Amino acid sequence: MTDPAALAERVREGELRLHELEEHADHETAANARRRYVVEETGADLETVGEYAFDAEDAEPNVENMIGAAQVPMGVVGPVPVAGGAADGDYFLPLATTEGALIASVNRGCSAIRSAGGADARITDSGMTRAPVFRVDGVVEGKEVVDWVADNEDRLREAAESTTSHGELLGVDPYVVGDSVYLRFAYDTKDAMGMNMATIATGEACDVIEAETPAELVALSGNLCSDKKPAAINAIEGRGRTVTADVELDRELVEERFGTTPEAIAEANTRKNLVGSAKAGSLGFNAHAANVVAAAFLATGQDEAQVVEGANAITTIDDRGDALYASVSIASLEVGTVGGGTKLPTQSEALDVLDLRGGGDPPGSNADALAEIIAVGALAGELSLLAALASRHLSSAHEDLGR
Amino acid sequence: MTDPAALAERVREGELRLHELEEHADHETAANARRRYVVEETGADLETVGEYAFDAEDAEPNVENMIGAAQVPMGVVGPVPVAGGAADGDYFLPLATTEGALIASVNRGCSAIRSAGGADARITDSGMTRAPVFRVDGVVEGKEVVDWVADNEDRLREAAESTTSHGELLGVDPYVVGDSVYLRFAYDTKDAMGMNMATIATGEACDVIEAETPAELVALSGNLCSDKKPAAINAIEGRGRTVTADVELDRELVEERFGTTPEAIAEANTRKNLVGSAKAGSLGFNAHAANVVAAAFLATGQDEAQVVEGANAITTIDDRGDALYASVSIASLEVGTVGGGTKLPTQSEALDVLDLRGGGDPPGSNADALAEIIAVGALAGELSLLAALASRHLSSAHEDLGR
Amino acid sequence: MTDPAALAERVREGELRLHELEEHADHETAANARRRYVVEETGADLETVGEYAFDAEDAEPNVENMIGAAQVPMGVVGPVPVAGGAADGDYFLPLATTEGALIASVNRGCSAIRSAGGADARITDSGMTRAPVFRVDGVVEGKEVVDWVADNEDRLREAAESTTSHGELLGVDPYVVGDSVYLRFAYDTKDAMGMNMATIATGEACDVIEAETPAELVALSGNLCSDKKPAAINAIEGRGRTVTADVELDRELVEERFGTTPEAIAEANTRKNLVGSAKAGSLGFNAHAANVVAAAFLATGQDEAQVVEGANAITTIDDRGDALYASVSIASLEVGTVGGGTKLPTQSEALDVLDLRGGGDPPGSNADALAEIIAVGALAGELSLLAALASRHLSSAHEDLGR
Amino acid sequence: MTDPAALAERVREGELRLHELEEHADHETAANARRRYVVEETGADLETVGEYAFDAEDAEPNVENMIGAAQVPMGVVGPVPVAGGAADGDYFLPLATTEGALIASVNRGCSAIRSAGGADARITDSGMTRAPVFRVDGVVEGKEVVDWVADNEDRLREAAESTTSHGELLGVDPYVVGDSVYLRFAYDTKDAMGMNMATIATGEACDVIEAETPAELVALSGNLCSDKKPAAINAIEGRGRTVTADVELDRELVEERFGTTPEAIAEANTRKNLVGSAKAGSLGFNAHAANVVAAAFLATGQDEAQVVEGANAITTIDDRGDALYASVSIASLEVGTVGGGTKLPTQSEALDVLDLRGGGDPPGSNADALAEIIAVGALAGELSLLAALASRHLSSAHEDLGR
Repeated sequence: MTDPAALAERVREGELRLHELEEHADHETAANARRRYVVEETGADLETVGEYAFDAEDAEPNVENMIGAAQVPMGVVGPVPVAGGAADGDYFLPLATTEGALIASVNRGCSAIRSAGGADARITDSGMTRAPVFRVDGVVEGKEVVDWVADNEDRLREAAESTTSHGELLGVDPYVVGDSVYLRFAYDTKDAMGMNMATIATGEACDVIEAETPAELVALSGNLCSDKKPAAINAIEGRGRTVTADVELDRELVEERFGTTPEAIAEANTRKNLVGSAKAGSLGFNAHAANVVAAAFLATGQDEAQVVEGANAITTIDDRGDALYASVSIASLEVGTVGGGTKLPTQSEALDVLDLRGGGDPPGSNADALAEIIAVGALAGELSLLAALASRHLSSAHEDLGR
Repeated sequence: MTDPAALAERVREGELRLHELEEHADHETAANARRRYVVEETGADLETVGEYAFDAEDAEPNVENMIGAAQVPMGVVGPVPVAGGAADGDYFLPLATTEGALIASVNRGCSAIRSAGGADARITDSGMTRAPVFRVDGVVEGKEVVDWVADNEDRLREAAESTTSHGELLGVDPYVVGDSVYLRFAYDTKDAMGMNMATIATGEACDVIEAETPAELVALSGNLCSDKKPAAINAIEGRGRTVTADVELDRELVEERFGTTPEAIAEANTRKNLVGSAKAGSLGFNAHAANVVAAAFLATGQDEAQVVEGANAITTIDDRGDALYASVSIASLEVGTVGGGTKLPTQSEALDVLDLRGGGDPPGSNADALAEIIAVGALAGELSLLAALASRHLSSAHEDLGR
Repeated sequence: MTDPAALAERVREGELRLHELEEHADHETAANARRRYVVEETGADLETVGEYAFDAEDAEPNVENMIGAAQVPMGVVGPVPVAGGAADGDYFLPLATTEGALIASVNRGCSAIRSAGGADARITDSGMTRAPVFRVDGVVEGKEVVDWVADNEDRLREAAESTTSHGELLGVDPYVVGDSVYLRFAYDTKDAMGMNMATIATGEACDVIEAETPAELVALSGNLCSDKKPAAINAIEGRGRTVTADVELDRELVEERFGTTPEAIAEANTRKNLVGSAKAGSLGFNAHAANVVAAAFLATGQDEAQVVEGANAITTIDDRGDALYASVSIASLEVGTVGGGTKLPTQSEALDVLDLRGGGDPPGSNADALAEIIAVGALAGELSLLAALASRHLSSAHEDLGR
Repeated sequence: MTDPAALAERVREGELRLHELEEHADHETAANARRRYVVEETGADLETVGEYAFDAEDAEPNVENMIGAAQVPMGVVGPVPVAGGAADGDYFLPLATTEGALIASVNRGCSAIRSAGGADARITDSGMTRAPVFRVDGVVEGKEVVDWVADNEDRLREAAESTTSHGELLGVDPYVVGDSVYLRFAYDTKDAMGMNMATIATGEACDVIEAETPAELVALSGNLCSDKKPAAINAIEGRGRTVTADVELDRELVEERFGTTPEAIAEANTRKNLVGSAKAGSLGFNAHAANVVAAAFLATGQDEAQVVEGANAITTIDDRGDALYASVSIASLEVGTVGGGTKLPTQSEALDVLDLRGGGDPPGSNADALAEIIAVGALAGELSLLAALASRHLSSAHEDLGR
């Protein structure tokens, strides 16, 4: 029973449900059958979707109801020299995107950074968070729970870390709102992005809390984590890696490469990224950091929905007279080099381009380096777009390249 | 001179720059040469990256420095009945993701919605925005500019619309901060996501403003647009489509499908999505709407960085006694069915699954329908995750499916 | 029966409730009796609280359960020349505060502004808002209500304006979230702050909406108004007056008066008010605008709780080479010169100092002028504090003046 | 030379500046002379402003350029039983306000709380903050400074605490944005609100940092404090006291007192305070907590501009079937019972009504208790207003009481 056409027919006749196909055939055949079924139901052609370059079975941890793959063009920028706390060297950064002109623009920024001798980068804070919410009777009980947690962090650590060979509990921050208690657990998850690790470990710790205190768990995530939502708590306190990249460019370099001046770039940054974002009620004080984050995430197998947190970035420009100082500080960049989508073939090849596939030595250093390089890519993108705006290239660049 | 190895050699020797390869060979060969060069420089294997299923030349509007493609597993959820203002019927929604358990979870939600007779959806506001920032001498001049704009919106409309055969200027909202004036132009861009259309049209309008008033353009985007940044202005006033999807589920259905109660789901939503997000200083009062937005964007060729705005969503749950009412309202969902990444093969096939490829009749209706269906997908995801949290499945689901 | 001691005794014995005293005696005696009662119950001395300088009966619209008055020291700053859209002349601004060094600091700023020839000011937007929330069945019904409102704004205007001789409905902005519909009504309330006027008028309009549509009113205020809460909607779209004040100071003036340079003040503003506030997730990009707003509100009889909205201010500093440009833009300054606390004696005397007591000619011009002058006061405060920070005076100023 | 008329004449003739009067006469006479001068310059009558009930000299730490006082009507609410961590007993809370109907409304809430046996309250976090901003060369240096601070917190504590006999440094949180480093110092300031104490202590610590690291102080406050601005950092992490008050009311009590049901109040809270505030991009998820905070601050001598932070409050309502649970959690309530305006006569009398004047035993307990009682007052106000909205009283209450 491995004929895809026959399987598709059985789905159509209601004998099988669409998600049960893998129980009746190998993954390749199941995807084929599902594709056929969808084609027949919708009249769509799924030929290209079916031409994926990985083994369907290998994608099992990443997808259900598989019909094939989305293919997104991948380019590279660089080489760009990065002097980071973990990254060290000249890097080509793979970017997958459908936005015309983006890679050219980022590459222009990388080229300027290279001419300036490279960018610095540092992780200034780190920790993957999960924040369950508990119900208590009221604030009296809530305060008791908070005090118990403060006094028993070692017990929570023991429980949490019993679920993981790599992760370490860094701390637990409590927040009380009426009869809800939120506990924000932060973990060092090494080279994993760590969301699942943090969730599982926190679940174990919650069992202890429920056993020892009157708190009752309502939801293992109470949104103070905060995952895949734009939230000030991430922009302020960080989630995943908090990373800054910066560079100083000589005035001549600015003028030659960008056809504008440090003053003009600084002014564009102030009026757009600082004052404009202020007036917009924004958590993102940058031009388009999310573009680079999204494209790098897609290329290297990160969680695309976490682009949301990756947009919590502040770009600063100082006109230092004979030079322009530029920086990007991304508060909550959630990346990993193991797990999730990083094992898929095109994604792991992209990580290989950076020499950052798999676990680092010491553990966590690969993910640190990836964060630093992405931040440098974002810096390149900011520089290039600000310069384009300062010299009024934006719409003409899109006119040339973007449709 | 179309041997990729030779071309790569010329790049290595500094005779050609990496982005100039397309000037010396067809796109396929250029990508091949670039891949070879990167492989040699980094030691990476790019075999799978090179196995893309589209014509390299067709990707030219979408990418530069191309080396191949990222492949992301695509599955489907549905069919889910949608009664929208534009969407009408039973839809399979393609989702591309690397997050295990996501599609299964969304599909579970779709199944429940289907059993409930389907979801409603409506676009409640619409408009793509671009907000240039101008320098004025001070507030006296700023007020003059604002008044001039109010008196001359027809001239701005004429200029803006001269650049586009489809787009219509809906209005211009002024904001003054000191000696900066921001003008937020909003357009009906029909079935295009419309960012480029809005940028080009606004550029033309800016020329008129600079000619007729003392205002000098500093940047064609002043961040009150606000593109690819988490910003309250989008969460409040919308950008792209503002769309709500909702459904009412009988109590029995909730209990049977989700193994929990309306009360428990409502409580999880209140403590997590409302109070938790409030405490987190969030613009996203939902569980994981961005997951569905990101996966649908990737499958259908939307701009992945605009997942940022797609996370501006509020989920509400009413316990109506004998039924549970659930809704998701996404404030700023930026989608198109023409232009951008929608023309790439896997992406246009995905749009075909929805029967929404290309321009709609009337214009704009395809993009409206896409927004409505994605909102229903997000609703399915919210229902399923809230139900899982309410019944404490979250970490075990990830334990089973998510590694 | 007008002996306060006897009245207090009756309260103590449970024969009268504390708020019923005015039914049994004149207001003076009632306040006296209440004071006695509280003194006896608590052991406090309320002698000074009882030495108020207004007629207790005149305070009836402002207070209940009156025992006397709080007395807050009042000083003046100025004269400061203001060239506003409504304000025009040299003004002394009364400020009531308990924060040592505040008035001296603001006065220093006023003095510098005076030396620079005065400040400009303009109202760039205006409107008092009230936003009721309605329950609908779901988004289908919600969209119908929104459409009905768009088609019937004249009927809503008629209803709303039937309740007021002065107010004018400027417009109604709809927001849909699931099965809730919010309608933000904006009014020109002339010289009144206008909250009550807007509430009453909106109540009347709600009756029409409930009669003509399926919407049911849940709360006459649905928090999109948004009154007395820190909210981006006010910071972006304004509430009450949106006002900017600015000034240009010669470099010499800056150096002489402030002992620092335009560069240093600009740097302090950028790192503190722009980047610092950005990182803090703030809606207030200023140093201490709320100080001047609070003190001016208290002196002139404004609603002290609306200081919250008055803090939605952005301060900008441009180093213009030979001069420093400084501005403060307050998004939501809610002021009136009639009604509320403006009729109380010390407050109306303070308004007289500004020659702005009562209704203006044309209507609204007095409140406009008050907003402009307060903005100039805030500008003075910003300049002075930024200069002090730039020259490191802050803690020593407090050491000298502040304890 | 103590004739006020003659002094005023000398100011008019330019011989004296307005702020120099205290150098030439006692404070009473100086204020009198200043009043005369302003009267002559503006034509205003300042008779009532001059009838203040305190000794002008005693107000010297609180005001400059004094002309008299603003008088604001003061009433009381209560008695309301509070079972707090510090407060314990039945309290009358003095409130100074000009908003008609406010005290009546709060008192109605207090009465309901009293009937329910009183409210609970707890301080769940505490600490006054000051966050200087430093300039560094770039992120490499920034990271060094952050590491140095982490390694030398004891040295910073020693320096900071050398300036104060009461205050204790609780910790220092670092934030890096490009070439700016922000250090958020948090202090236990006992019964003082503590802003000045924190500023002075932090100034001393900054000297150490500048001596030992390459960081250069740009501003002693870098807005991550964040004082008198609406900022998520305060709403999330707290500033001053983080306090929750809550109460459970029987259904019968709700119906009898408020003429509505727990369901209706819960619905109003959800649609208005939670969903409405969410859509408004708010940091305040309450109805009007700022009203009570402002009025209590004014009565008891707190800093009126800090009402801004006091509005960072979340109100929750649970319909518990046979009872209604209500809570208010104020994240950043900055209060003191010593210093600032608390020593002025009417203000210290108001503190005496609460038996909280001066330092507590143990230190800090008076300010803790004050925070708890204000939170209970805010809770009363929330209950009453939500109930009024639920039963549609809002505009009619204002019609009756509010003009």
